[in-house]
Amino acid sequence: MVNQFDWQKGFGIDFDFSSGMSPQAETTRRYLSQMKGMYLEEEVRAEMCREKDPLVYEFYELGVPECGGDLAFGTTIVYPGKVNNEFYMTKGHFHTILDTAEVYWGLQGTGYMLMENMDGDVQIQLIEPGRAVYVPKGYAHRSINSGDTPLVMFFVFRGDAGHNYGTIEVKGYRKICLEENGKPVFVDNPRWK
Amino acid sequence: MVNQFDWQKGFGIDFDFSSGMSPQAETTRRYLSQMKGMYLEEEVRAEMCREKDPLVYEFYELGVPECGGDLAFGTTIVYPGKVNNEFYMTKGHFHTILDTAEVYWGLQGTGYMLMENMDGDVQIQLIEPGRAVYVPKGYAHRSINSGDTPLVMFFVFRGDAGHNYGTIEVKGYRKICLEENGKPVFVDNPRWK
Repeated sequence: MVNQFDWQKGFGIDFDFSSGMSPQAETTRRYLSQMKGMYLEEEVRAEMCREKDPLVYEFYELGVPECGGDLAFGTTIVYPGKVNNEFYMTKGHFHTILDTAEVYWGLQGTGYMLMENMDGDVQIQLIEPGRAVYVPKGYAHRSINSGDTPLVMFFVFRGDAGHNYGTIEVKGYRKICLEENGKPVFVDNPRWK
Repeated sequence: MVNQFDWQKGFGIDFDFSSGMSPQAETTRRYLSQMKGMYLEEEVRAEMCREKDPLVYEFYELGVPECGGDLAFGTTIVYPGKVNNEFYMTKGHFHTILDTAEVYWGLQGTGYMLMENMDGDVQIQLIEPGRAVYVPKGYAHRSINSGDTPLVMFFVFRGDAGHNYGTIEVKGYRKICLEENGKPVFVDNPRWK
């Protein structure tokens, strides 16, 4: 995208608290067709894409310089929905510079930040309006919408952190978030067996 | 303060959108008595402190590790008020690691981010609800409340950035923000002559 923002002299950009959208920038969109192999029920996912390819999430990439002194920021919006009984979520990622943290701040909706490090330690934090979640250094992180309205978050991370999908695109995270009896539960991901 | 937050495994913390306050942490408070020499009319400031020492601003320091991979975050609340006709503001600072940026996000109230670098380049950005302001590398930054309600902002910067008050405590910024005919105006700071 064209970089319309001045990272050297500063700038302002507006985000709507309710929708998370900005009138001054375009989002990057992830449709269900782009999430092959991310859900337990791959056949259900593929079938859903054939009917109508739903938008799962979108987020802003404002063109931050890949520099350790700069900060990438923007909003992420995860839409409500499920593949079978598995909630819509972001792909999530490790940072390429592994030991860099990320701050999320919940604006609208309800969900979870699912985090795991290379040693297999899993951390789960509730996301809701007003609640900031600290994603520590070394943890892959995925946001999950467990509600029935859009999950809107503000995020900030280091400009040079980068995204590394690592094992995530091969077998996912160690835990998955399912709806059981109308409530979100985290269970072991069978693909990690 | 006792560090109750787990920066190694992550944590969540709540902030109220309206007040900016968190039930889980204490703020650091700056009273007018602590801002000696910061306002043009020093005698007015001193007199205001003798009568009743008003709270000018407060912010959260959550005890982030001083590490380049971590991120400090929290809210800052600048209260409405003036010293003579100069609006309440934060002291502001350079980062000790000069080339580190900061992201602010306006939640409530109206004001300005006043920024200047070592070469004397001055940048001014409006802060209002929903508007994110990027403070670039190398710029000292001060937030000013030009309205009549609290100015509430969410902020994020690198854990090792540090604060350097440099020339700010000696002669302030190159510009000051005054109320003239009911409106905020930026004028040259006579102390920089």
